[in-house]
Amino acid sequence: MAYITLNNEFPGIRGLMAYRPECAQPLNELAEVLLCADGTLSRGERELIATYVSYLNDCYFCQQAHGGIAQYLLSCDTEFIDRVKSDFQHTDLSGKMKALLSIAASVQQSGKAVTQEQVDAAVSAGAVEREIHDTVLIAAAFCMFNRYVDGLGTWAPQDRNFYIQRGKQRAHEGYANYNPAH
Amino acid sequence: MAYITLNNEFPGIRGLMAYRPECAQPLNELAEVLLCADGTLSRGERELIATYVSYLNDCYFCQQAHGGIAQYLLSCDTEFIDRVKSDFQHTDLSGKMKALLSIAASVQQSGKAVTQEQVDAAVSAGAVEREIHDTVLIAAAFCMFNRYVDGLGTWAPQDRNFYIQRGKQRAHEGYANYNPAH
Repeated sequence: MAYITLNNEFPGIRGLMAYRPECAQPLNELAEVLLCADGTLSRGERELIATYVSYLNDCYFCQQAHGGIAQYLLSCDTEFIDRVKSDFQHTDLSGKMKALLSIAASVQQSGKAVTQEQVDAAVSAGAVEREIHDTVLIAAAFCMFNRYVDGLGTWAPQDRNFYIQRGKQRAHEGYANYNPAH
Repeated sequence: MAYITLNNEFPGIRGLMAYRPECAQPLNELAEVLLCADGTLSRGERELIATYVSYLNDCYFCQQAHGGIAQYLLSCDTEFIDRVKSDFQHTDLSGKMKALLSIAASVQQSGKAVTQEQVDAAVSAGAVEREIHDTVLIAAAFCMFNRYVDGLGTWAPQDRNFYIQRGKQRAHEGYANYNPAH
């Protein structure tokens, strides 16, 4: 049960967004521009960064919700998502994605944990500056979303299939016209 | 110098917002609804929560920028802002504000660090649920803003008077029509 009375039964951030739609609007606009809008990182890659940071923050709802979307967009299986979480360096992700996930992991700890060497490594692996910018902001944004979801004690379905089923729907609908009831 | 080429000379988040205006728009809309829109916490109290979390995240630009705004809105001096940062429990802030700052400090560590006891203490001190919600989301949002500013290695003026002077201007202009060049 959430720490405050949400007057709805929606899990995770959906319950909070139904409770406070004035905040939900810019939050969803941010998610749309970071995760869905045109970019040189694929939507699946961006959802994978969101999933990994949510895993590092131990936020069950966000890591499963965005993991489900990433799994659909990347046409991979759940085991691959789990291997990225536990040890992305030993997956067959590109060198660029590994360098960006390394930056995201530093952001999760602190903005100041990011180093020039990490940025140089990402550039050497083929990342353009806009991709580095967006990786840092995606990671930072999920440090917000994760704290919002867990800091108010929201509930989360425990069945991963719930999120995998919804991942396809969310991938198709995006975030711009997000309706917490759907 | 920032880790990426911003093609502008603006410090802190201003340089990032000029670089990527598509992201700046929802970020400023979020700041507006959390920090400026009508609410039962005063604007100064909300800026103080933002300042405190930015201090805990060791983000110089954000703690000075929002500290300058809080100082203006609360009609206090710089020494009071500094005492809130170092030991808010021994200031003359209300019991409600102390309880909310305690929740904000937990959010800064992790969403899961917030406890039912902290929420109960805030309610006992007079906080309504909307104030608890907004405190958690303000704290979470500054865990994003701080990581964005420092994770991309932006520069920050070191003279605190710079921020105190600008605090009055930002307090009057708000965030909705934010122009990084102003």
